[in-house]
Amino acid sequence: MPRGGPALVSWGAMAKTQALTPQSEDFSAWYNDIVYRADLVDLSPVRGSFVIRPYGYALWEHIQRELDVMFKATGHENLSFPLLIPMSFFEREAKHVEGFSPELAVVTHAGGKELEEPLAIRPTSETIFGELYSKWVQSYRDLPLLYNQWCNVVRWEMRTRPFLRTAEFLWQEGHTAHASAEEALEETRRMLDIYATFAEQFGAVPVIRGEKTEGERFAGAQMTLTIEAMMRDTKALQTGTSHYMGENFARAFDITFNDVNNQQAFAHTTSWGFSTRFIGALIMTHGDDRGLILPPKLAPHQVVVVPIYRANDGDARELVMAEVRHLEDALRSQGVRVKVDDRDGISPGWKFNEWERKGVPLRVELGPRDVGEGTAVLADRLSGDKRSVRLEALPDTIGQELEAFHQALYDRAVVFREEHTFEANSYDELKEMVEHGFVYATHCGDPESERIIQEETKATVRCIPLEGPSAEGTRCVHTGRESGYPRKVVFAKAY
Amino acid sequence: MPRGGPALVSWGAMAKTQALTPQSEDFSAWYNDIVYRADLVDLSPVRGSFVIRPYGYALWEHIQRELDVMFKATGHENLSFPLLIPMSFFEREAKHVEGFSPELAVVTHAGGKELEEPLAIRPTSETIFGELYSKWVQSYRDLPLLYNQWCNVVRWEMRTRPFLRTAEFLWQEGHTAHASAEEALEETRRMLDIYATFAEQFGAVPVIRGEKTEGERFAGAQMTLTIEAMMRDTKALQTGTSHYMGENFARAFDITFNDVNNQQAFAHTTSWGFSTRFIGALIMTHGDDRGLILPPKLAPHQVVVVPIYRANDGDARELVMAEVRHLEDALRSQGVRVKVDDRDGISPGWKFNEWERKGVPLRVELGPRDVGEGTAVLADRLSGDKRSVRLEALPDTIGQELEAFHQALYDRAVVFREEHTFEANSYDELKEMVEHGFVYATHCGDPESERIIQEETKATVRCIPLEGPSAEGTRCVHTGRESGYPRKVVFAKAY
Repeated sequence: MPRGGPALVSWGAMAKTQALTPQSEDFSAWYNDIVYRADLVDLSPVRGSFVIRPYGYALWEHIQRELDVMFKATGHENLSFPLLIPMSFFEREAKHVEGFSPELAVVTHAGGKELEEPLAIRPTSETIFGELYSKWVQSYRDLPLLYNQWCNVVRWEMRTRPFLRTAEFLWQEGHTAHASAEEALEETRRMLDIYATFAEQFGAVPVIRGEKTEGERFAGAQMTLTIEAMMRDTKALQTGTSHYMGENFARAFDITFNDVNNQQAFAHTTSWGFSTRFIGALIMTHGDDRGLILPPKLAPHQVVVVPIYRANDGDARELVMAEVRHLEDALRSQGVRVKVDDRDGISPGWKFNEWERKGVPLRVELGPRDVGEGTAVLADRLSGDKRSVRLEALPDTIGQELEAFHQALYDRAVVFREEHTFEANSYDELKEMVEHGFVYATHCGDPESERIIQEETKATVRCIPLEGPSAEGTRCVHTGRESGYPRKVVFAKAY
Repeated sequence: MPRGGPALVSWGAMAKTQALTPQSEDFSAWYNDIVYRADLVDLSPVRGSFVIRPYGYALWEHIQRELDVMFKATGHENLSFPLLIPMSFFEREAKHVEGFSPELAVVTHAGGKELEEPLAIRPTSETIFGELYSKWVQSYRDLPLLYNQWCNVVRWEMRTRPFLRTAEFLWQEGHTAHASAEEALEETRRMLDIYATFAEQFGAVPVIRGEKTEGERFAGAQMTLTIEAMMRDTKALQTGTSHYMGENFARAFDITFNDVNNQQAFAHTTSWGFSTRFIGALIMTHGDDRGLILPPKLAPHQVVVVPIYRANDGDARELVMAEVRHLEDALRSQGVRVKVDDRDGISPGWKFNEWERKGVPLRVELGPRDVGEGTAVLADRLSGDKRSVRLEALPDTIGQELEAFHQALYDRAVVFREEHTFEANSYDELKEMVEHGFVYATHCGDPESERIIQEETKATVRCIPLEGPSAEGTRCVHTGRESGYPRKVVFAKAY
């Protein structure tokens, strides 16, 4: 219960909190409520484009910072390619143009004149990287090229939702070129591992690593690897992909080199991307009816400190605020991202609700009595527990507290996924089970069968998982034919 | 002279270095040579857009990191606004549309259809921030809004040069809203101070702080503050601007609030921007005929270590490389950005030339004899000096060495500017002096006179400086009228 006594005005805090649609009632409405109510995004005057507000953008900044360290540690460098790409570039790779041209936003006029050739705003940059790579690569000594850019892209989607599917979004796109298929495949797997490690160790989002079936591949890729996470409505969200292009783009853009034997050869290229969509994964993997629950390693504020005193008690204010500033400094010097909510005229209860809605992992409540006793109340956003802790010990133990929070959040997500993961031995079982989560089932690999299953169940093959039940000795639950893959595939409804 | 003996092949290093056009012969050609030869940029297939290569982009990453810390320390938060802005938004502020509409790149088609209203790629975002600010600001309690975004913008320029003037460029744009003119003016000055401090303390680029004359103001601003730096051809480069908009954008976008007296009032807004143009300033403030000279605080590599041994002497290689790795670790643990150039088959002389061209502040040369004596050769890119230093002491002293390098670079730029700064007491003097640098002269403030001076001398009023010679008791060098400003203004030819 909020503390602080009746002197404080609560400004209808409870009413505002109750306005969040419960997940169980309408998960989609809950999502829509929370992205605005937690100040993550706002609508913009441009259809399908959103303003990412500071609280949402801070999440992205932490995602960027951590991933960027991992990219650089594996030898990648950042650079910046143009936003605009000549339309003709897309036509050079047949499947690529087929996949992306319906979504392009096209600049036809610039500087007051009609352009000779229209320019597309990049939906992804394989083509323009290809153009430059053909220039930069002459000899095997020039390889590999290991480059990445953090940027915006535009894909004109018909139905948009904040973070999940937007006309413009922020992402990173890595583009690499290698002398051999082996090296390029190794890179493709390495980057998927980085995405999976990041999702789990920083986002506390457990993921299934796997390969996409032919029909779900990136337009122009020979192989697409993916990580798939389960949201709390049991639907899947693809949160990162890594593509092996083979020689497709090298042939389309003439990326050739003299190999060690002085023979002309085509380079093997890869690309891999991770976007603001992951913020949607954080929201839907962890959030509850009270709002967001953010993983400590990415949370804009890891700890919020709420000072508590009666509005008219100046002595108590002074006493409490002195201790709060002391604690703030001590936490900050431990590298903790701490927010002190010292706003006047707003009740502690209101503040508790606000920071719970915004998903701050830990809250410290500090009143005059606590100060006198050398204690504080530590509230945990995930468990809802509150306990008294020694003030002086807090800076030293806060790191462990946050680590434990991360682990509990991750474990809860794993348990939830396990509770909603099934194995189907017949098509009827599959149809029933995909209503409740992920379903492992044997599939023949026929794209037409995949299409029919999607039509009838709304579920798709999320991936052929790298780990999971073997398909040996089983037959396709849909066609009864032999399995197309060594393992059972994962079916699920997806975002 | 390169060391290492005749066994090493030099691959025509000298010839490649000599291909850089000397500054004195053609400064513009030197600039064009060095941006490509130092691997900062490459041409792209899109007119006026460039690829910023990893070595150039690393400079931008350091600029971003340091400025971002300064922005956050002064209470600003980052967010992300849409790339595309409805065309009609520009028309709401009369001067803004006049200034920017000739440069807009316009999306007319998206998702395979013609758009109902064309969308411009942002050339700057005052208008779309204004639209959202009108929604976010209701009460004086909502103010100030202190937001910034790091993003790309497009301005369809006719004549482009890498970093200096490009169709697309990277920048940050801060947009703030305040309850009073005083607060907004204070913000405008604060951000100019941050730019100036950054330019000088991180870029070693001395700048003149001043106000733009009416004709040179940002389109829609009531006041534009600027920092102006002198390039080594004595021309000026505007490297950062901070604008006070008054109520102009608040009126155009209806950013109103209830003030403390419960009266409706218009907010006062500011905007301020700093771009990849500053990389151009670094190149042209510090570079010489051998290439770039980078300020240590922004340099991608602060120290390059070149191991030296005969190609066929495996023992020497092992001895030297062990010491090099030891030194690399020791420097890195001091927070130094160190690059070890251990490429085989390339001579030390070639490596020296390459890293000199790329402007690495300090170079450590380490051969077998050095290792035996516990010394290394430390070469300074600015002075060209080489001296023997104790290996074991190097990690402890490298910080001071880099600091001294920064100071010497800054001092050299100040001396150069002072040697090329003059005071004109007549129009004839002005005409003669602007051929050689910055000229302080009294001006009446008449825009028509400014126009004529520009036509006749190619020089413009760079700013009304915040410090500098008083105009008291003097008259306009052009019209003979009274001074329009308290100080003499700065005339110069500019980029």
